[in-house]
Amino acid sequence: MSGTERVGVALIGLGGAVATTAVAGMELLKRGLTDTKGLPLAGVKDAGLVDYGDLVFAGWDLYDDDLAKAARNHAVLKESQLAAVAPVLGRMRPWAASSNTDFCRNVVGHSVKKARGLRAQVQGILDDLDHFKKEQRLDRVVVINVASTERPVDRALPQFATPEAFDAALDANDKNIGPAMLYAYAAVSTGTPFANFTPSVAADVPALLEFARRNGSPVAGKDGKTGQTLLKTVLAPALRDRALYVDGWYSTNILGNRDGEALNDPASKASKIDTQGAVLDSILGYKVQDHIVQIQYYRPRGNNKEAWDNVDVIGFCGQPMQLKINFLCKDSILAAPLVVELARTLDLARRRGEAGVIEELGCFFKAPMTRDGGTPEHSVPEQQRRLMGWLSRECVKPVTRTERLRGQA
Amino acid sequence: MSGTERVGVALIGLGGAVATTAVAGMELLKRGLTDTKGLPLAGVKDAGLVDYGDLVFAGWDLYDDDLAKAARNHAVLKESQLAAVAPVLGRMRPWAASSNTDFCRNVVGHSVKKARGLRAQVQGILDDLDHFKKEQRLDRVVVINVASTERPVDRALPQFATPEAFDAALDANDKNIGPAMLYAYAAVSTGTPFANFTPSVAADVPALLEFARRNGSPVAGKDGKTGQTLLKTVLAPALRDRALYVDGWYSTNILGNRDGEALNDPASKASKIDTQGAVLDSILGYKVQDHIVQIQYYRPRGNNKEAWDNVDVIGFCGQPMQLKINFLCKDSILAAPLVVELARTLDLARRRGEAGVIEELGCFFKAPMTRDGGTPEHSVPEQQRRLMGWLSRECVKPVTRTERLRGQA
Amino acid sequence: MSGTERVGVALIGLGGAVATTAVAGMELLKRGLTDTKGLPLAGVKDAGLVDYGDLVFAGWDLYDDDLAKAARNHAVLKESQLAAVAPVLGRMRPWAASSNTDFCRNVVGHSVKKARGLRAQVQGILDDLDHFKKEQRLDRVVVINVASTERPVDRALPQFATPEAFDAALDANDKNIGPAMLYAYAAVSTGTPFANFTPSVAADVPALLEFARRNGSPVAGKDGKTGQTLLKTVLAPALRDRALYVDGWYSTNILGNRDGEALNDPASKASKIDTQGAVLDSILGYKVQDHIVQIQYYRPRGNNKEAWDNVDVIGFCGQPMQLKINFLCKDSILAAPLVVELARTLDLARRRGEAGVIEELGCFFKAPMTRDGGTPEHSVPEQQRRLMGWLSRECVKPVTRTERLRGQA
Amino acid sequence: MSGTERVGVALIGLGGAVATTAVAGMELLKRGLTDTKGLPLAGVKDAGLVDYGDLVFAGWDLYDDDLAKAARNHAVLKESQLAAVAPVLGRMRPWAASSNTDFCRNVVGHSVKKARGLRAQVQGILDDLDHFKKEQRLDRVVVINVASTERPVDRALPQFATPEAFDAALDANDKNIGPAMLYAYAAVSTGTPFANFTPSVAADVPALLEFARRNGSPVAGKDGKTGQTLLKTVLAPALRDRALYVDGWYSTNILGNRDGEALNDPASKASKIDTQGAVLDSILGYKVQDHIVQIQYYRPRGNNKEAWDNVDVIGFCGQPMQLKINFLCKDSILAAPLVVELARTLDLARRRGEAGVIEELGCFFKAPMTRDGGTPEHSVPEQQRRLMGWLSRECVKPVTRTERLRGQA
Repeated sequence: MSGTERVGVALIGLGGAVATTAVAGMELLKRGLTDTKGLPLAGVKDAGLVDYGDLVFAGWDLYDDDLAKAARNHAVLKESQLAAVAPVLGRMRPWAASSNTDFCRNVVGHSVKKARGLRAQVQGILDDLDHFKKEQRLDRVVVINVASTERPVDRALPQFATPEAFDAALDANDKNIGPAMLYAYAAVSTGTPFANFTPSVAADVPALLEFARRNGSPVAGKDGKTGQTLLKTVLAPALRDRALYVDGWYSTNILGNRDGEALNDPASKASKIDTQGAVLDSILGYKVQDHIVQIQYYRPRGNNKEAWDNVDVIGFCGQPMQLKINFLCKDSILAAPLVVELARTLDLARRRGEAGVIEELGCFFKAPMTRDGGTPEHSVPEQQRRLMGWLSRECVKPVTRTERLRGQA
Repeated sequence: MSGTERVGVALIGLGGAVATTAVAGMELLKRGLTDTKGLPLAGVKDAGLVDYGDLVFAGWDLYDDDLAKAARNHAVLKESQLAAVAPVLGRMRPWAASSNTDFCRNVVGHSVKKARGLRAQVQGILDDLDHFKKEQRLDRVVVINVASTERPVDRALPQFATPEAFDAALDANDKNIGPAMLYAYAAVSTGTPFANFTPSVAADVPALLEFARRNGSPVAGKDGKTGQTLLKTVLAPALRDRALYVDGWYSTNILGNRDGEALNDPASKASKIDTQGAVLDSILGYKVQDHIVQIQYYRPRGNNKEAWDNVDVIGFCGQPMQLKINFLCKDSILAAPLVVELARTLDLARRRGEAGVIEELGCFFKAPMTRDGGTPEHSVPEQQRRLMGWLSRECVKPVTRTERLRGQA
Repeated sequence: MSGTERVGVALIGLGGAVATTAVAGMELLKRGLTDTKGLPLAGVKDAGLVDYGDLVFAGWDLYDDDLAKAARNHAVLKESQLAAVAPVLGRMRPWAASSNTDFCRNVVGHSVKKARGLRAQVQGILDDLDHFKKEQRLDRVVVINVASTERPVDRALPQFATPEAFDAALDANDKNIGPAMLYAYAAVSTGTPFANFTPSVAADVPALLEFARRNGSPVAGKDGKTGQTLLKTVLAPALRDRALYVDGWYSTNILGNRDGEALNDPASKASKIDTQGAVLDSILGYKVQDHIVQIQYYRPRGNNKEAWDNVDVIGFCGQPMQLKINFLCKDSILAAPLVVELARTLDLARRRGEAGVIEELGCFFKAPMTRDGGTPEHSVPEQQRRLMGWLSRECVKPVTRTERLRGQA
Repeated sequence: MSGTERVGVALIGLGGAVATTAVAGMELLKRGLTDTKGLPLAGVKDAGLVDYGDLVFAGWDLYDDDLAKAARNHAVLKESQLAAVAPVLGRMRPWAASSNTDFCRNVVGHSVKKARGLRAQVQGILDDLDHFKKEQRLDRVVVINVASTERPVDRALPQFATPEAFDAALDANDKNIGPAMLYAYAAVSTGTPFANFTPSVAADVPALLEFARRNGSPVAGKDGKTGQTLLKTVLAPALRDRALYVDGWYSTNILGNRDGEALNDPASKASKIDTQGAVLDSILGYKVQDHIVQIQYYRPRGNNKEAWDNVDVIGFCGQPMQLKINFLCKDSILAAPLVVELARTLDLARRRGEAGVIEELGCFFKAPMTRDGGTPEHSVPEQQRRLMGWLSRECVKPVTRTERLRGQA
């Protein structure tokens, strides 16, 4: 059923747990060694999405281990699954990455782009994408950021206000421009779809969003919605509809992977927790007085993740009740398929000629970006309804490579 | 803001925890001693719902304790709240109830209608409603069943197929007609709205639904959706949308009130568990192989209720994850406001001229009735969307008593 | 440090999850592929216990799969662990077992002893043990029952009262004698130590205990204390010591292995739940009014086991508090090392000349047998203290095979 | 059954939740309105402990609300219980307290001893005790600290090394001497038993312990062991005995009372968390690599307290298992009876002529003090065994007031 389109997916953080799981999972799927469980849009037909088998993966990382080794280290998949895809993954090695230890202190890899200056870094990224396209004979490419979280940046800085100001800042090697922004700039400057699966500031400044609109680049972000926030935004609408007043919500997370270690850097952590902040209040329509979110690095959890939530609600006649949720999940298992679906949906948006923020992809994110910088929709059911609506709009069938070549003839 | 309409709410099981909580809560609200937390439709304006203050409560019970005493025994509300409404509740005493120990073995009260034969029982119920209307100078009445669960009945029996067959069965004192059916018959025979908040079979047989349509009686049911099933139908749509395959769902409940004791009768229990059966599969779109529901009487929980759910899901690449939910809730606190909203919405339906099953009230029920006996919608977000749509339809303003009297003049 | 003693461990239910885990684990330990974590007596020195490396395993099962295949099916250990021991386990195949479907309905295997009549069955068991000793050049043997639970038997029957009565019943092929009793009889008749790790009735009838004392056979049982009961008997003494009154204890278990399926047979289940009955009351010193234990077969849990306990306690001034425990454990991982330690301690008891019930091994059991049939100690701390005391008594050093051979020279 | 002894219990922090609960509870007990549930030594007979009815309460606080008002604010007990003892508690008002905002920043009350200088403060405390004894015609007095946690102090300072150095420091108004030390000094200087139920540094410096021995003052402390640490020290010995290796232990606490607010001061919090640090390692015999303890102020929990613990253990063959414990408890309900028992046991120690640290009372504390500053026993079962042994030693019967008066005559 697979077409002959080939869509490249360039992942920032290719060696990480999420990326290697996505790559390994797609390989397992191609080989019939797994099914489409966990892929939210597997059941969507006739919307014009390219097939899973049409995706071709590559990307950047600060660690240059081949993907077989990286995936084995992350130990997300079963030994037998890793063995089955090792021959393919063993031939994949990340490109050198743009790095800035000021932005991500706890993650220090050695495979770093050597180019001096921000412009040169951007050019290096563009060269990688060009090379990727040619070597793999790709029809189109999508860039997705799944790297470790960078420290917060003030998005209101004047250099982020317009494309022109941003260009000037690039030329001046402005210290406020982090690596994620460089990748975003490179992508949107060439009309390439760009998604930010992390809480880092990437394309979500006025300059780059305007730039994306000008260049026809669809953008989505930010911060993949997987474990605790997913549950929170599933439950909160129901509590609101039943008029159960949320008196307090205590959330604690334990996780033991490289992302967790990065979070031990308070700056990165602040960025992450901040993301959860407004979500709940926005759904409920009032400020939850005691909403506490804790994220804790805890080695024994390994690449798994565990959330414990305690929700105090007040019901009829002021009576208190409690709801406790314990989610034993696997971050990469939840995140990887969303990354895959982002690649497919952003590619569709590009073909449909949509540019700038694609708000209908908000269900994939903890902090959905909006076209006008307004308040996003956080309720999962409502987000899902919008996504389904967007997918069912008049679809633009992907032209297969065969057809295109025929057309060119 | 209260009009001068007076809508009677006749509750079957008036002395029970749910009913006394509803009555006490409405009294506290009138006195400004509590707010509208927990009342799902408190925020709905301009839909034509009567005010909370317009509701007047009465009803039947097998125990004839006055409501102050009954409420104190149930100990759902705080001592100080009970004290505040004791003077009013102390003057309220349930009417003698229709009883049939064959249908509800573990609940044996002594305030029983003495009339011989089913016809006479029905007449007694009608007399109660007439007396209620006159004495309280009511504009309209709604009947809602919140009594203990009766044993299952075969709804496909020929005597339940048509109004005529049912009438004949009534005359013959057919043993398959339980008390809940008698109340339902009495209500729909007079065009009175009827809701069944219990899993018992009441109006949900073809005969009575047809009878309701003929007589202009709006009907809703059955089995109030409060604790565990509410959560289940909130979470399941999200699991489906994220393509997280439910490999198993183990639900256990502990509850310590009179309902719990009734459930120790295996027949009543079967009826209750059965209700949960199809719900999950219907939302997910496949049969959950291991869906286990346990309901256990456990004295120390008292009138509170506790649910523990373990959900095993399979995600991307066949990886298992677990979700555990512990809900420490109060059945009556969750149920009572739904009963109140059912009274308001069914009254609205009656004024809007709607008859038969009002499907849009499905969000209040574990086993929503459908107009054509088809599969109901169980997803909470979708049910909520339908309810909101129904409420926002061209509304029929309640004519206030004053206006009506003026009109008569 | 290993001596040259060789102690055979003949397991009833050799192909089961517990037994295969014990066998595989000991092989991994010998090869240095695992350490002694989980082995309670690994730290005990100078008590005269034989080394782990001195144990030689064999046994009976109704399924005749070789142990490598059986272990792979149970999937208790990691793929790589199973692979490491597959060559050894692949050569081990259970002996045909004594079977009686009346005693264990849901487990139907095909490797059944063909001997007609109970006497012949016993003789078959004895022949197996003899053959085992000779073939493996064993110094001594211990028999341990880890088979699926059999249905309850009335231990007060006259045929179980004395060795003579039992002998007569054997000759008469009495239908009340189940397979576990046959193994127990065979063991104690030859002075062989016997442990019953299941709730089945085996040696725990007066006839066989007397027989054991006469023949010098140490006996221990019954029903291995692993997950929920272990926790219960750890927590209860503390609650007692803090005077926190247990108002109710609700325990639910979900498990998905062959044992779980056996429990779907109500008779076997009754036997298992019954075991937990008196434990709590015995520790607390009063009858817990609401002590509910549920055991539920739940396929998705596989060979793992999960317990959820809710404890309602009443403290100072009658104030209620709640304690909830969720134990995600692996039955075989908890049970297998206890089986190993039982083999070592019973062998020690035999060498020390102790016969009949060895009460000091009570910490390993849910329903510890007592010498006089009196109430056993259930408190884990107290049981542990007694075990340590027993181990530190003047020990009888095991004579190593080398020394013995030398002595014989 | 009550004797005619009168033992005064002077509580530092009398207006707090623990103290008011202790006082109210003892009053309820005297009146027969509650029973001895929750009082650990209620069942101990013939050990020479004074009766509960013989205790007379008073004490200091920075807030001078009468105890009826204070208890109502804490809302630990039921409305009806508070009402029953309001007449008595309403007449009790705390004495002005020694205060030092440098030691306890977040708790600022206004009922402060006006005396200038540390010596004068001590004298004020002694005057209070004298007055208490005379006014209430007490036989003996015990002083117990249940005030909010003070910031940590360096116990190795030279001024804390000897009684003489301490005296000099007192004269010099040394800034390292906090309020808790002043109370401790006053108590031990007069041979009065002193217990420290908080993590503050009080008598646990060499100077004051030596002083206590010289003056015959029995001392106990520190930091009452109630919720999470209690469970931890109950479970850890069992995990050790079963050789289940603790790979990680993640503990989080939410609490909403004045103590919780005090903990929002990082200095006080450090002191509290520190206390838990060595406990686990000491029981297990190895350092738990990932032992994380979080204490979080969370308003909705009110005076209740909730702990969630996740324990990762490694069992046989390196297999991981998880244990999760959710304790919904009431800090004051657990703490108050321990305070009462400390009063009774320290009074017994005084009569038996024991001075200095009474190690056998270690079961009441998170950080038990030891005679020689060595490592304390933390295992609950072992602590309990020692306490029982201490209580069963040749007891010194309390001489009743009647007998004493007779003797004087």
